[in-house]
Amino acid sequence: MNISSEIRNLISNRRKGYTLEAPFYLSPEINTLDIEVIFGRHWIFVAVEPEIAEPGDYIKVDVGHNSVIIVRDDDMNVKAFHNVCRHRGSQLCDDAKGSVGNLVCPYHQWTYDLSGKLIYNEHMGVDFDKNDHNLKPVHVGNIAGLVFICLADEPPADFDNMRKAMEPYIAPHRLADCKVAIQEDIIENGNWKLTMENNRECYHCIANHPELLNSMYEFGFGYQPSPENAEKVQEFRDLVVSEGNRWAACGLLSAEIDLLDGCATAYRTQRLPLEKAGESQTMDSKVACQKLLGDLTLRNLGGLSFWTQPNSWHHFMSDHIVTFSVLPIDAEHTLLRTTWLVHKDAVEGMDYETKKITEVWKATNKQDSTLVERTHRGVKSDQYEPGPYSPYTEELVEKFTNWYIQRLEAEIDNIKSSVTPIKICR
Amino acid sequence: MNISSEIRNLISNRRKGYTLEAPFYLSPEINTLDIEVIFGRHWIFVAVEPEIAEPGDYIKVDVGHNSVIIVRDDDMNVKAFHNVCRHRGSQLCDDAKGSVGNLVCPYHQWTYDLSGKLIYNEHMGVDFDKNDHNLKPVHVGNIAGLVFICLADEPPADFDNMRKAMEPYIAPHRLADCKVAIQEDIIENGNWKLTMENNRECYHCIANHPELLNSMYEFGFGYQPSPENAEKVQEFRDLVVSEGNRWAACGLLSAEIDLLDGCATAYRTQRLPLEKAGESQTMDSKVACQKLLGDLTLRNLGGLSFWTQPNSWHHFMSDHIVTFSVLPIDAEHTLLRTTWLVHKDAVEGMDYETKKITEVWKATNKQDSTLVERTHRGVKSDQYEPGPYSPYTEELVEKFTNWYIQRLEAEIDNIKSSVTPIKICR
Amino acid sequence: MNISSEIRNLISNRRKGYTLEAPFYLSPEINTLDIEVIFGRHWIFVAVEPEIAEPGDYIKVDVGHNSVIIVRDDDMNVKAFHNVCRHRGSQLCDDAKGSVGNLVCPYHQWTYDLSGKLIYNEHMGVDFDKNDHNLKPVHVGNIAGLVFICLADEPPADFDNMRKAMEPYIAPHRLADCKVAIQEDIIENGNWKLTMENNRECYHCIANHPELLNSMYEFGFGYQPSPENAEKVQEFRDLVVSEGNRWAACGLLSAEIDLLDGCATAYRTQRLPLEKAGESQTMDSKVACQKLLGDLTLRNLGGLSFWTQPNSWHHFMSDHIVTFSVLPIDAEHTLLRTTWLVHKDAVEGMDYETKKITEVWKATNKQDSTLVERTHRGVKSDQYEPGPYSPYTEELVEKFTNWYIQRLEAEIDNIKSSVTPIKICR
Repeated sequence: MNISSEIRNLISNRRKGYTLEAPFYLSPEINTLDIEVIFGRHWIFVAVEPEIAEPGDYIKVDVGHNSVIIVRDDDMNVKAFHNVCRHRGSQLCDDAKGSVGNLVCPYHQWTYDLSGKLIYNEHMGVDFDKNDHNLKPVHVGNIAGLVFICLADEPPADFDNMRKAMEPYIAPHRLADCKVAIQEDIIENGNWKLTMENNRECYHCIANHPELLNSMYEFGFGYQPSPENAEKVQEFRDLVVSEGNRWAACGLLSAEIDLLDGCATAYRTQRLPLEKAGESQTMDSKVACQKLLGDLTLRNLGGLSFWTQPNSWHHFMSDHIVTFSVLPIDAEHTLLRTTWLVHKDAVEGMDYETKKITEVWKATNKQDSTLVERTHRGVKSDQYEPGPYSPYTEELVEKFTNWYIQRLEAEIDNIKSSVTPIKICR
Repeated sequence: MNISSEIRNLISNRRKGYTLEAPFYLSPEINTLDIEVIFGRHWIFVAVEPEIAEPGDYIKVDVGHNSVIIVRDDDMNVKAFHNVCRHRGSQLCDDAKGSVGNLVCPYHQWTYDLSGKLIYNEHMGVDFDKNDHNLKPVHVGNIAGLVFICLADEPPADFDNMRKAMEPYIAPHRLADCKVAIQEDIIENGNWKLTMENNRECYHCIANHPELLNSMYEFGFGYQPSPENAEKVQEFRDLVVSEGNRWAACGLLSAEIDLLDGCATAYRTQRLPLEKAGESQTMDSKVACQKLLGDLTLRNLGGLSFWTQPNSWHHFMSDHIVTFSVLPIDAEHTLLRTTWLVHKDAVEGMDYETKKITEVWKATNKQDSTLVERTHRGVKSDQYEPGPYSPYTEELVEKFTNWYIQRLEAEIDNIKSSVTPIKICR
Repeated sequence: MNISSEIRNLISNRRKGYTLEAPFYLSPEINTLDIEVIFGRHWIFVAVEPEIAEPGDYIKVDVGHNSVIIVRDDDMNVKAFHNVCRHRGSQLCDDAKGSVGNLVCPYHQWTYDLSGKLIYNEHMGVDFDKNDHNLKPVHVGNIAGLVFICLADEPPADFDNMRKAMEPYIAPHRLADCKVAIQEDIIENGNWKLTMENNRECYHCIANHPELLNSMYEFGFGYQPSPENAEKVQEFRDLVVSEGNRWAACGLLSAEIDLLDGCATAYRTQRLPLEKAGESQTMDSKVACQKLLGDLTLRNLGGLSFWTQPNSWHHFMSDHIVTFSVLPIDAEHTLLRTTWLVHKDAVEGMDYETKKITEVWKATNKQDSTLVERTHRGVKSDQYEPGPYSPYTEELVEKFTNWYIQRLEAEIDNIKSSVTPIKICR
């Protein structure tokens, strides 16, 4: 696509410390750019390994107008392919998930094996070369069971840095030995960047998320210092240190890493204490699953959080894991996919109740969805103008926005002139 | 926005006496122009005072993609603000109406008083200046209880002429002492200008509006003179004179004023006799509310009509008032809001039945909605071409269209180069 | 409309033997071109005569954003007009079908006779010339009861060649003496060209159309020759010859004519044997109506098929006829209208059961609709690229695509600069 001078100006004139100009949230043209650059050339989180536990298990993930099949092959590797037959372009998989021997196009039965190789088709004549018509592959990255894909030909190499840093944090929770307790898809009526900005601050929590605040410390996600809160802040800081020491003794990492901007594969992590019982993000902050993850024996391990640009966040506790994947549908609609995982041997009704595991984040997701939609509507006004981020509570929002603008700047002169430059409806 | 040469040509080549070219009814680009110029720089009718009777009462009005809050402040003044928080752009009010002490953003609790002043927010640091972040105001005009707004920085000054002329006509009906009996919103599947053109003629009444014709004289809204109708026409003219004299004796104005084009704030008014009982726009043309408005004692006061460009019409009778507000949603959808008012002390079930008050215009609105939708569909045809207005029955339609083209011509070289010139989805 | 250089390049760079580039299936701009050039300047199939059997009977057909009335006049001629009143542009007919004396606009009662002449209107003054405001006519072509229209001022003259060639094939089935047993409209979620491409091959039949294969020979619609199928192929060829001779003795033509590309009015026909009982496209391949068409006495007449560019196909059997009309709604939605006809004197419940007549094609249409939608979704991927047609089973698809590109090339420099060149929403 050709990037218009208007978009170039919007990118280069972005005012630091402020929300983006309206077209970044509303323009279908910029959304196409987001799909091509942000979601097309970076590592995006799309699944957890337990979703495709057995050979032939697949899931279908739609990233804007692009559809990807993620499948476990017979050697237990995770592979990904574009969900497009090389014959007439039909999608191969309709369903969100399933299990197959080969990938057979339902239109004319062109048959691909789980490595994407075209192994069978009829009527194409003796000169037809199957090797020219294999499925188009998609890069797969795996961090302790979190499955990322990259649609670019050459993915950012710094994924490996993130993997190496994060694996020791996540490993004790043994994601690959979990099962999906439940998965929820919400379609939010707003731009995906509003979903992300909303996730990156807790300034809005106090008035909007009563369930989440049951287990979340007020001072964990930013505040303006004042004489009134100085004592409580110090108490919280001391707690972070003492709990961190206790967890370290169990072999658990908790130190903050913040690389949310400045690199292509950007992220942040930290293990923080939880309120009250301190065990889990539940209504009473106690574990919701009696069978703990991996070899963990202590319940009060707080919450290990992991945030990635551009599209995910994750919370690992002693008893369960929650992961969130954000995928643009179009400029004005976003899929938020939430997945709750428990130990694969945990038995529903005995070890855990799905309701107790999910109620905090189901409520929180719903509240956030309303906030995103309301902001999207507001941004449409001709009188909307970028507003200031709080220097205390919205630093991570600013980092998300910075990263977003940085990545557009880094890639914009590098956009391939598409064979289909005319506007197409999505 | 940049006005394309195609649009400039369409405006300058408009053929007088004919309907507009198709793009005026269909083009999203022209609709954006309509929102910016017609609805953005003229006085538009949006509410009646009794909708916000008490301090803190507010209504939300959406004008295309712009949302406005109209609120009564503690000094009983009517104020209007853009419904956009100055922090992250969230809408402040979701509901169509309500009552508040201050305007508190539900996202991060930025709090504005009823004069739009930012009076409270947290976490923004010591250097943050609240005065730079007040709500953006919208101009308010008030004609005897009819509430108009203007989104422009400098509203047309001639509103005052209309106000001075109209107040003596409307005052005896004492709108501010009324209450809303009922309000109805219809979404019409057509461009707002088709809704307006339909309102500005009664050529279509005879075949489409049996309920309305119960109380409406055939010759009140145009006809082609002929030997056959000459006698009846003269009778009607005589009636207009004699009734006008009778009403004048009660202190009621009835003379026609027609300023429907030629000025920015354009309107027309006239008090006309009604058929049969001559009292009200009801099925039997008798009053539908036994408690008359204000200090009125006579029932047969005919109907005082008041039409404004670009978006309203109103009928004042001895017992009730009906007002109509037309607001574009997008190029192909229009909100028609109808409000019926009675004396604030009238008691439903005793003094009036809502059904009897509303049945004529509810039926008529529904019929008109079908006409607008059918015309909108027809205009989409490549073979549609502008057709001729009747010189006898569609003069007011022609004046609406003239005014519309005049206003585009007057403002088109004056359009601010937006900071967001790229196409955005609405 | 102005044709962009991108579209010109897409047309001139089309790779033969391959599916089209994605924008041909997705772009609203190309869809507008399709409506103007392909559906606007070629003969398109829209109805069968029995749908408008009596004087005053009409149907309404929407071709993209254009609406056409097809009506039988008092002299039993079939006429067609644009469904747009010459006054304010209202559509005259809302309903899909009906019966009228004159065409009266429901808005202001402008009245047109069945030749499209404006014969009555009020209030237009003495200088108004009715002759300048007749309905805009649409050309009508008729092949043995199949009704085609052409929206162009000067329709392609070669329609007559098709008519002369096809009438002797179709005449014995006496379409004009049939009645409509049932008609089904399906809206397919895909571009109309995908609907057509799907119709033009049976490569997909074996895995998708079990009902249709009950009566369809495997080798009637292409295959790759091989030692394994050589014997069966020869058997089928012999059958085509022997059955052709038998039908010729009854006065029925069966020889293939293939003029699917190279001319403006392009088509193909052939009468082929059916499997098993060989009588009809039913579940058991026996007739579904005991009363045979016209003067036919033999049941096993196979199936006479007639395919036209750009938008129809038809199957004529001894007992019933099925016709299919494909009409674009927008770039991503297509109307498939299927009409089943039997002898006009056949009595439902006695001579035929609607279920038995329709079950094969109702099932097949539903299956095809899924295939079209799935392919449309796949083509949206940025990674879709044109794929190869089978040289054995997709020759007719290639001819459709060739014809489509030829016709765009032939007409593209001939596109009138519209009076409304700006983008309008449809």
